[in-house]
Amino acid sequence: MRRSLSTVLRVVIFTCAIWPVLRAEDLEADSHRFVLIDTQSGQWVREKTLSSKNFDGIAKASGWSVRKEVLHGGKQNGVDLITIENGAMAFRVIPTRGMSILDVEINDFRIGWESPVKEVVHPQWVNLESRGGIGWLEGFNEWMVRCGLEFAGHPGVDQFTDNTGAEAEMMLTLHGKVGNIPASRVELLIDKAPPHRIRLRGTVHESMLFGPKLKLTTEVSTIPGSTELTISDEVTNIGSDPQEIQLIYHTNFGVPLLSEGANFIAPVQSVQPMNAAATEDIDAPWTYAAPTKGYIEKVYLMKLYADANSETLVCLKNSEGNRAATIRYNVDQLPCFTLWKNLTTIENGYVTGLEPGTSYPFNRSVERPHGRIPVLAADETRQFTLTYEFMNSTQQINESIEEIRKLQNDRPTEILQDPPE
Amino acid sequence: MRRSLSTVLRVVIFTCAIWPVLRAEDLEADSHRFVLIDTQSGQWVREKTLSSKNFDGIAKASGWSVRKEVLHGGKQNGVDLITIENGAMAFRVIPTRGMSILDVEINDFRIGWESPVKEVVHPQWVNLESRGGIGWLEGFNEWMVRCGLEFAGHPGVDQFTDNTGAEAEMMLTLHGKVGNIPASRVELLIDKAPPHRIRLRGTVHESMLFGPKLKLTTEVSTIPGSTELTISDEVTNIGSDPQEIQLIYHTNFGVPLLSEGANFIAPVQSVQPMNAAATEDIDAPWTYAAPTKGYIEKVYLMKLYADANSETLVCLKNSEGNRAATIRYNVDQLPCFTLWKNLTTIENGYVTGLEPGTSYPFNRSVERPHGRIPVLAADETRQFTLTYEFMNSTQQINESIEEIRKLQNDRPTEILQDPPE
Amino acid sequence: MRRSLSTVLRVVIFTCAIWPVLRAEDLEADSHRFVLIDTQSGQWVREKTLSSKNFDGIAKASGWSVRKEVLHGGKQNGVDLITIENGAMAFRVIPTRGMSILDVEINDFRIGWESPVKEVVHPQWVNLESRGGIGWLEGFNEWMVRCGLEFAGHPGVDQFTDNTGAEAEMMLTLHGKVGNIPASRVELLIDKAPPHRIRLRGTVHESMLFGPKLKLTTEVSTIPGSTELTISDEVTNIGSDPQEIQLIYHTNFGVPLLSEGANFIAPVQSVQPMNAAATEDIDAPWTYAAPTKGYIEKVYLMKLYADANSETLVCLKNSEGNRAATIRYNVDQLPCFTLWKNLTTIENGYVTGLEPGTSYPFNRSVERPHGRIPVLAADETRQFTLTYEFMNSTQQINESIEEIRKLQNDRPTEILQDPPE
Repeated sequence: MRRSLSTVLRVVIFTCAIWPVLRAEDLEADSHRFVLIDTQSGQWVREKTLSSKNFDGIAKASGWSVRKEVLHGGKQNGVDLITIENGAMAFRVIPTRGMSILDVEINDFRIGWESPVKEVVHPQWVNLESRGGIGWLEGFNEWMVRCGLEFAGHPGVDQFTDNTGAEAEMMLTLHGKVGNIPASRVELLIDKAPPHRIRLRGTVHESMLFGPKLKLTTEVSTIPGSTELTISDEVTNIGSDPQEIQLIYHTNFGVPLLSEGANFIAPVQSVQPMNAAATEDIDAPWTYAAPTKGYIEKVYLMKLYADANSETLVCLKNSEGNRAATIRYNVDQLPCFTLWKNLTTIENGYVTGLEPGTSYPFNRSVERPHGRIPVLAADETRQFTLTYEFMNSTQQINESIEEIRKLQNDRPTEILQDPPE
Repeated sequence: MRRSLSTVLRVVIFTCAIWPVLRAEDLEADSHRFVLIDTQSGQWVREKTLSSKNFDGIAKASGWSVRKEVLHGGKQNGVDLITIENGAMAFRVIPTRGMSILDVEINDFRIGWESPVKEVVHPQWVNLESRGGIGWLEGFNEWMVRCGLEFAGHPGVDQFTDNTGAEAEMMLTLHGKVGNIPASRVELLIDKAPPHRIRLRGTVHESMLFGPKLKLTTEVSTIPGSTELTISDEVTNIGSDPQEIQLIYHTNFGVPLLSEGANFIAPVQSVQPMNAAATEDIDAPWTYAAPTKGYIEKVYLMKLYADANSETLVCLKNSEGNRAATIRYNVDQLPCFTLWKNLTTIENGYVTGLEPGTSYPFNRSVERPHGRIPVLAADETRQFTLTYEFMNSTQQINESIEEIRKLQNDRPTEILQDPPE
Repeated sequence: MRRSLSTVLRVVIFTCAIWPVLRAEDLEADSHRFVLIDTQSGQWVREKTLSSKNFDGIAKASGWSVRKEVLHGGKQNGVDLITIENGAMAFRVIPTRGMSILDVEINDFRIGWESPVKEVVHPQWVNLESRGGIGWLEGFNEWMVRCGLEFAGHPGVDQFTDNTGAEAEMMLTLHGKVGNIPASRVELLIDKAPPHRIRLRGTVHESMLFGPKLKLTTEVSTIPGSTELTISDEVTNIGSDPQEIQLIYHTNFGVPLLSEGANFIAPVQSVQPMNAAATEDIDAPWTYAAPTKGYIEKVYLMKLYADANSETLVCLKNSEGNRAATIRYNVDQLPCFTLWKNLTTIENGYVTGLEPGTSYPFNRSVERPHGRIPVLAADETRQFTLTYEFMNSTQQINESIEEIRKLQNDRPTEILQDPPE
């Protein structure tokens, strides 16, 4: 008797797992669309796997799947996680953490880094104001996390307009809030036409009375079978007053891609140390040392050359020269490139950050007089597009390096020896 | 096979939905009583609808229902929400946010406001200390939210007694904590005798070692078929030392009730601007402008006339004069009335606040020397009762205005031109 | 029809309750092992009771049980709680609150205290930085809570190394963070060999980039049928730089064990008041007064005599002399003993704390120059073992007192009259 009920239970649980059934909406549209989270309509899918097997028609491409789940236990209890497996690689997106991307995996080769933070931390455990404004670090372990939107840089006091309309001061916290705000809406789209691009869209609101009213609409997408992913973001000021924004794509690489002898390759127009430690090897910041006990982080501020369409390309190549990651983006959208080298021990968080941004990671009060803070008018939207590619062929890597060489086009790299005042 | 199990599943889920069965307790009492949340006994009803259909006897009045649910996704994940539909209007109470009332709806006419905050924000996302102490605003979108209990006004440093018994300083945060504390007990009562008043009671504790030990027992009630709701609150000092308390009923109205030409009507004994912006139209603060870009909030501090029982009445009337909301309350309980005009654009949060309080919304350190902070002795309880009525007949509105005129009784309104020092 | 489905439902729910089945792992090991929470593998048992009835063999000792549950409602919503009933006593461990022990119960005699905080507070409600750094108190109601690991004492500014490697300042908050960090892994072990000790192990990480990388592995264990429990903790520095640690076992007793005439008995080498109020009865801090209105907490700093193995013993005896609790521990591990007397009214939190620690509860900046902050080298582990015994026989109590007398061995107690400067 018990056995048969147990069987019933399993079927019931299985049925639960595929219920609520994801419905493809907008049948006339270009994509199959599935809503995973929508706070306005109250939709929220706890667990669900959707895969190419669910499609009889054209979308049944090379063995892709998308899995939505909820993590349990410790600081990750209640975190929504979405894993997109495209047939050639898998990556994990965290709606609960502002649609950050936890990591990418290609045939057991993990792109990401070993942070001292091991769990996917629910933001309820992160007090951004703690430790003098660097509480953000208590949840930081993603491969790609956005810094922003109201502010994106170092902690410290800056001005804002308070609820009486007066200029007041507030503590800006490290790298802003958007990486610790949950998405209000998440939807999955599968293009009906080849190559059946898989798109995961998330909407994150950084909005309040007497504060910013910013909406981030982010899309991370990939083509089945490729080792490329594209982030297409829009930031909209839905308030009626002009609003400063900052956005830095804090993309982090540790072992195994990063190791002694790895190289950063980019068409560098100028480079300047951000901190004193970085002055040491300002003449050759392009190479990486082995994990080093007592290493003090070094940060470099760069301007990059781009093509006629303002497109540029940067590359992180492993020491063997047979693995690389590239980022292709637009320097009009993201004029400031920051290279972060934190070549400490593995235990302490050996990592390098490749960080295209609207700004450098100084406090907003520093960035403002340099004109490095975009201001969005009411209803204005700004777009940011970055394409990441993961390579494991020397030929492919060499082609990328050749492309970067052409972008440099024998033009000089200005090296400023000292940090800005 | 699968189909029949699916049917089983639906029945099981349906059965789950009405289980745990709400039991009417205290059968000899005046009310049917249903416990929805009780942390002491561990009771917590996830989802449940109770309606007049469940009653065969006298309580089967005009088509009322009460629905308890849990919200999902984004910042509202895990928020308990209770919707009371009384046959003539519906209102939504948020146990997770100190029993605040999200909004009221009467035949598709919504009483509330359009905050830039769109979700019902779980307090885990609100750091009251952020932005220099105005983090409260990151969750603020209710029609009625209590400010209090230990402090209720503007942020800023004030004194308190620390854990060594010494006078220390602490940062008071905007509007206090009670609106971001979840209720520890929530129960629904249906009066057995006509008119079968529906009562939702919640208990909220603001209590800690070396801090306040205050208990808020709140009741919001309504009579089936009416467009009136009554808030009956008790604040008790369950500690053994005298304890200051502050309580402001921050009741907020936006479109459609508020628009250009709407009017505030009250028996005003005195009015004074709270901030510089409010001095501009201190001679006629009673009227409302259209949404105005760049509008700086204006705040007015009032004393109101009352009748022999200390009862007073205020009214917010729409521009057409065919819709209004009134608040009837006791000026001995709530001697300070604050009118908040934030006539900015719709996007930025066009709203007016009618705010009966024990105090004005200055920092507690400002209110104290003016004697505007009640002190509760050990075990002392103070009561606060407010009745809100929503009108859509010109005649009914005119009767209210006439009542207010009689309260004024041709007595003068003292207009102070400048804010307090 | 409905009835039978309801029956199905109950069976389904029952089956759910024992599913996921706890599997005894490591069959060759010394213990039956059951994983309750493990964030790495994604395991998390919502509700489960395991008892001696589940064992046919040798572990079927005297009627013990272990129950894992999740609390609901108010500030305790989502809190994991584990109750261990060993046949002679029961105690409740809170994985969500750093493996603190809520209370102990022996035949309806509760060891613990009546805090103004009544719920088992989920740390999401605790802002450690609030009230000038004493937000910790908003969740404080446990019988035994660890203070630590990076810092454990009073709030206030101290130095730390920031993300640029520079010496910066940060606000240390009262009693540190570990009591408000959830365990990442919890497992239950039942020894296969007599006396079949029941062990609950939890791992708590206080770890971040540019911050501490500390791992607390805690075990609380008890022998079926005994009234003794043992805490065996290990703190490991998993970072590669030396790391300061602090740990205080804040063990708290209120009524009924504590009342007028209760006594603290210990082999005291020296005692000094920590605060001004404590100077009053510095000559006889060993006795307790009745709950006293307006009582200011008194804190005493002690050094204790120990035996040749550095083991010491302290005792709290009730006024009748027929109930007592003792703590046996090692003064090399925990050289600082703090006695906290907060003999205020019951409502305000009548309690005494017996607090063996690596340090006294001054701010870390005060403890450091006195050499009272252990520094762990990379990979270094330090152990802390404390055995608590609960007695209800005069003879047993007298034997403990006699043992303490022998530890004192007629040696003097140095009484310092004034607090340290």
